[in-house]
This record gives sequence, structure tokens and C-alpha cells, in this order.
Amino acid sequence: MRMVDLIQKKRDGHALSEAEINFIIEGYTQGTIPDYQLSALAMAIYFQGMNSKETSHLTMAMVKSGDTIDLSPIKGIKVDKHSTGGVGDKTSLIVAPLVATVGVPVAKMSGRGLGHTGGTIDKLESIDGFRTELSAEEFIRNVNEIKLALVGQSGNLAPADKKLYALRDVTATVNSIPLIASSIMSKKLASGADAIVLDVKTGSGAFMKDLEDARALAKAMVSIGKELKRQTIALITDMNQPLGYEVGNANEVREAIEVLRGEGEAGLTTLCLTIAAHMTVAGKIYPNFDSAYAELDKVLRSGQALETFKRFVEAQGGNPDQIDHPERLPQSTYHLELEAEEDGFISKIDAEAVGVAAMLLGAGRTTKDDTIDHAVGITLRKKVGDPVQKGEVLAVLHSNDEEPTGSLERLKRAISIGQEKVNKLPLIYDVIH
Amino acid sequence: MRMVDLIQKKRDGHALSEAEINFIIEGYTQGTIPDYQLSALAMAIYFQGMNSKETSHLTMAMVKSGDTIDLSPIKGIKVDKHSTGGVGDKTSLIVAPLVATVGVPVAKMSGRGLGHTGGTIDKLESIDGFRTELSAEEFIRNVNEIKLALVGQSGNLAPADKKLYALRDVTATVNSIPLIASSIMSKKLASGADAIVLDVKTGSGAFMKDLEDARALAKAMVSIGKELKRQTIALITDMNQPLGYEVGNANEVREAIEVLRGEGEAGLTTLCLTIAAHMTVAGKIYPNFDSAYAELDKVLRSGQALETFKRFVEAQGGNPDQIDHPERLPQSTYHLELEAEEDGFISKIDAEAVGVAAMLLGAGRTTKDDTIDHAVGITLRKKVGDPVQKGEVLAVLHSNDEEPTGSLERLKRAISIGQEKVNKLPLIYDVIH
Repeated sequence: MRMVDLIQKKRDGHALSEAEINFIIEGYTQGTIPDYQLSALAMAIYFQGMNSKETSHLTMAMVKSGDTIDLSPIKGIKVDKHSTGGVGDKTSLIVAPLVATVGVPVAKMSGRGLGHTGGTIDKLESIDGFRTELSAEEFIRNVNEIKLALVGQSGNLAPADKKLYALRDVTATVNSIPLIASSIMSKKLASGADAIVLDVKTGSGAFMKDLEDARALAKAMVSIGKELKRQTIALITDMNQPLGYEVGNANEVREAIEVLRGEGEAGLTTLCLTIAAHMTVAGKIYPNFDSAYAELDKVLRSGQALETFKRFVEAQGGNPDQIDHPERLPQSTYHLELEAEEDGFISKIDAEAVGVAAMLLGAGRTTKDDTIDHAVGITLRKKVGDPVQKGEVLAVLHSNDEEPTGSLERLKRAISIGQEKVNKLPLIYDVIH
Repeated sequence: MRMVDLIQKKRDGHALSEAEINFIIEGYTQGTIPDYQLSALAMAIYFQGMNSKETSHLTMAMVKSGDTIDLSPIKGIKVDKHSTGGVGDKTSLIVAPLVATVGVPVAKMSGRGLGHTGGTIDKLESIDGFRTELSAEEFIRNVNEIKLALVGQSGNLAPADKKLYALRDVTATVNSIPLIASSIMSKKLASGADAIVLDVKTGSGAFMKDLEDARALAKAMVSIGKELKRQTIALITDMNQPLGYEVGNANEVREAIEVLRGEGEAGLTTLCLTIAAHMTVAGKIYPNFDSAYAELDKVLRSGQALETFKRFVEAQGGNPDQIDHPERLPQSTYHLELEAEEDGFISKIDAEAVGVAAMLLGAGRTTKDDTIDHAVGITLRKKVGDPVQKGEVLAVLHSNDEEPTGSLERLKRAISIGQEKVNKLPLIYDVIH
């Protein structure tokens, strides 16, 4: 088998076989196939696509390129949850303790943030003492006892994906549905989950700006799950404005606690209950979505999920006092209010711009080596569709810099006010089974 | 400027600017832009193409990546000739002395053969003592005195093209019209010619199997010539069967001498006169094609072109006695005759298969480091359309191996006999100005 012939085959629109895809990924991982052939192949895939069998073979080849986590010592159906990334997306902080409370074991590996979106690990590190590195034994024990443990991605999971992603990043081949789908799914499958609920974000603040692209990605991932016999459900949800009101690390933990107290923003709460309901049905806790949703709503209001969250934080070394008193989580020195300059309705909140504004405050990283300021962030006071009067506060910048000019300017431009009444944005566009 | 953005621009179907193309080629030549980005770009160009401005900018950027030959010490309009490569293509050996005889200075750099097509340099080295390396002074002096000198490609001409071609070869991106056109034209332009006549071969033995692809390539190269103010004419000519009767090195020199004696095969002679006529019109020797063709036909019959060829050979150290007595050129030990197994008409002679059969005898190289046997080759006795009787000789294998089984088998399969009368193949499909 010669790599150049396989590139040509894909270039000419033919499907690659399982053996051919294994040859490519093994060779690339071992370094016998060079970057310049992989990048040409990736560009050919960009133009010619891959069918669902090819995409599944690619996913499995990347899973097999490294270690896989064995979750069999954990009792029950392990259900994982993954979001393609958005601004203010703190759903994992809420959904994980919620489903754990009703008996779904959540053994989660999570990432750090880069660019305008935050990472769950970064957010949890707002809590004093919280450790994201656990020994394998501790991880398994915590899941069996509390039904919930969350660690940073470690070990040698899907190294082929890591290498290929870095190459795609510098060769304009990131934006290919089969390559994105196999990248996400290879990491999820290597992490050992039995079932996966995916939250595919779409809109201005998402990687997939366009609904149809998001739907195609969702379908590709569900199809991989089907081929590889892991139940996979994908929700397509809105990211045309930030999720909830809070953006930043401690900020988002505080908002998560509000939701876990049953006092959260309606849209965010609904989305969390929806994701959780799909996870609990996949975990065979409830027979169907409607009953799951109703039961989980009750659990949330009862405060039991917040209790689980607190136990989980404590088990990983975090200070539980900050969960009871979220105002004791890190707070910034300055709080700048952005006021409306006219009456009207909020017509747009550019999620990506808000994410970048928060990143510039120090809430996110521009490069992998940046450090994060957990105290800073942005609180939105209005969402799209809300009426607003001149002088009303639209948002608050929590800053440790007295004059965060760049961030403030960006935030100003991110929020648009129109004269016409504006409908609220839909929250969930579609569910792909 | 970031290379990844330029790859994306091309990927999305936009044209690259001159500055962008210069940035790419300079960076690639200097090694600041890595292979893996160039191969992704080449694949994007494969799918999205390049317009004529981009192709010209790419050509000039590759010319500027290395040395250029200054032919200004040579008097007159220097006209170069280039063939995209075929089997039995000995036209340069005939056309160069022919146009030199009537006053067109030919300062030619030529290549060695690889695969199923031969190189002019290899053919000339069949002549005892012939040197293809001349000093710059010798080269210029010979052109001014004899109007003809021919050397191997040397120096640092279009190194970006050399580097890019090697990369395209292993990334399935050779077959892109703008990349092929700019590759050929960059080498021609760096060699310093004022005008260029291109012979674009099409058919089973050519790189461009398809007439429409050949036409597109011809148009792309003529367009580059126009943009860069070098008169360029492209002929599209047949390579569905070998050119003339002889394939091999000494073999082809012998056939060239026959044509220069006015005794050559009609088709080959016509093609040489046609190319030469275009060259002499470009060189302002004759006012138009028809008068040029008529005059050159007379010159050929007069034996003057053969005289020029002999002087040229002698000036480069070759034995002129072998030109007077071509039977003294290297001869192989064995001559195997392939006989027709049935009556009928020659319906097909697969040029590529004949080329490979000759290569297997030792007339060509499978890798760059192979050495060549100048004595071996194939003589066709029939061409497409000729009637044939059972037992008649179709071809002769000139071999230094008593049983050249692989070669013989290939040659057998290459020549097809049908029962229906078959038309002669056209020789020249089109001329692009």
C-alpha cells in the first residue's frame, strides 16, 4: 500500500477501506507517513468528504492509536456528555451532579479552554483546593461512591487525533465534518463511555456558525456512535448569544450553583434538564424523555443535585464552604457597568465577541501557556428580546484592571439594541438520535 | 501574512495575489513554509484551480527562486522548443539543427528521461564522445557560431519548482493544469528564451491522456507566455502511438538522421517541419507559417540541416563519423522479430506500453540512478492503420538479453490487430496561439 495512491483515491472521490484507513493512521502515528502526505489527504477529505463507514473507521483507528480507559470497574451504564463549545456554557457543572444524583455514573474527562470558550476544568479550579488530577483508584472509587468524578484529560488518549488536529489547524483543514466528527468521537470513545449525549452548538459564538453544518456534524457523530455500537444522541442548541447570564470561571460556577438551587435562568435550566433527561434515559434510569424531564425537574428543585455537587467538590479537595456561600468564590476588584445608550429591544448579543471580551479580561487563554484569572468575567443583565431603557445596565465587567478598555469596547459592540420588538431566540433546534 | 490563511483563501475558491504567491514561493524555497502547508495548498489548487494571472505570478515566483540564464550575448531571437514528453519523440534532434540552419539561434537545455519516455540528452549520448556539459563561454560561442548548442539542465534554475514538483509527486497533486503549466514554463523562462514553441502530447503514451486536458494545458501555458511577454505557441499532437518507427537511444538518433536526410517517416517529418516552421516565424526568419514550411522542407531535402547536426555533434566532442554512418552507432546483440498472428489492420499501438517495453530492455530508467543501454530499443515496422498479413514482422526488439521475456510480452500486448479497416491517426490536433 502506498500513501500517495490512497491520497489519489480520496482525491478522486472514492471511499477508503478500513485497512487503508488503519494503514494511514498507524503510519502517521508511528511517523512513517509524513505530515505533508496527511495534510494533502486532509485537504482531499475537505473537498470529497467521507461516508459514514469511513468516518467510523477513522474514529476507531484514532482510538486504537493510544490508550483507552477501562471503566468496567464502575457499575452501571456510564453516560458521557460533550459540548462542542460555547460562551457561558456551564452545563456540565449542572448536568453531571444532576444525573449522578439519580444514579447515572459520570466518569468524566474534561478539557481546558482556549480562545473565546471556557473549559470545565478551568471553571472548577475557581474553587479553592479543587484537584483535577486523581489517581485511577481514586477516580473509580469516587464514581462508585458519589457517582461523579471529573479529571483533566491525561494519558495517551487518541494521540493520532492530537497530532492530526495540530496539523489541520495550520493547513486550513479543520473545517471538515467527517474530520471534526471523528476527532470528537475518538476522544469520547477512548474515555470509555457506554453512551454519549452531544450538545452541538450553532450560531455566532459556536464553531458551527450555520444550523445546517451543525446538523450535519450531529448526524455524522450519531452515525459513528451507531456504527460503533455506542448509543449516541446529539442535541443542536443555540449559541447566538452566551448561555445564561454569566461568562468567566468563578462567575459560571456561581451561576451553576443558582441553577442547582432551582433559581437559575430559565433557558439554561431547561437546556440542562433536557441534556440530563437524555442522559438518564440512555442510562436506563427512566423509561422515556418526558418522565425523565419531570423527575429531574423535581430533583433539581429538591436541592439534592446541589448536595451531590458539594460532595463531589469536597471529594476532589475543593472547599465546600464556597458552594454554600458562592460569594466567597474569587471576586474581581472592579465592576464596570455598561449602560444602554437608547431605549429599545436587545436585538443581538454576539457570543463570540463576549467570549473574546472575557478572554481579554483574563478569563481565558489566547495561547495554551497563558494563565487564567478565575475572578474576572462578564455578567449579562439582558438577553436577546429583552426590552431595555436608556441608562439601564446591560452588562457588568468584573475586572482586575481599572480600565479594561479593549474588553469594554468589544462588549459594547457585541450588544445591539433595535427599535423593533425582537423574539427570544430558540434554545434547542433539533435532537438527532 | 499567514500561510494558513492563504491556504484557506485558495480552498474557498478565491484568487491569490502576486504578493501572496511571492510570499508562498519565497517562504517555501527558504524553508520557512513547511512541506505540509505547501501540499495542502497544492491539493486546494487541484480542486479550485488558478486563474491565468495567478498561474503567471506562480511561474514568475518560481523563476525568481533561482538563477536565470542570460542569453543576451547571443545575437538574434532565441526560440526554445519543449515537448511534454512522449515515446519515440526525437523531434528536438531534427528541429534544432533545422531551424539553426536557417538562422534561429538555439541555446537549449534538455533533460534526461525517466519512466517510459526518453530524454534528448540520453539520446545524444549514444554518440561516442558527445559531451552535454559545456562551460558558459563554450555554450555561447557554439550558439553564435553554429546557431546550436545543447546542454543538460544544470545550475540552480527554478529550485522552487524542483522542490514543489518532488512534493506534488508524493501527494497526488501532480495532475493540476495550473501547476503543470507553471512548472514547465518556469524552467523555460529561467533558461532565457525569447519565444517558446510547445509540443503538448496527448493520448495513451502522453501525460495528458485526454485531448481536452491537453488543450487546457496548452492554453494555460500560452496564457502564461502572454502575461509574461514571451511569445508562446502550443501545438497539440498525437501520442496514441509512438512517434516515427524507432524507440530507444541510438535507434532514435538513427531515425533522426534519416529525417535530416529527407528520408524519414512522413508523419514524423511533417511534425518536425510544423514545429520548425512555428519556431522560424517566431524567430522572424520567415513572414508566415506557409512560406516557412515550404522553405524548411527544401532545406531539409538539401541536406544542410544534417550538415548543421554534424557540426553541432563535433563541436560537443561527438564522433561525426557516426553521423555519416549511423549503422556505427551502438547496436545490440540480439534482434527479436515480433510477427503478426493474424491478417488484418493495426488498430492500436499502446505508446506507453511500447515505452515501458523499451525501458525494460534498458533503454530507459525506472529510477533516477539507473544507467542506460544506448544500443537497445524497439523498431516498429507498422503503424496504426497499416494492413498486415499473418507472419509479417510487426516490430523488432533490439536487446542485449537473449530472452527479454517481460519486454516481449508487453510489446505483444501493446499492438492490436483488428479485422475492420482503420483510419490513420491524426498527427496535429490543434495549434494554440
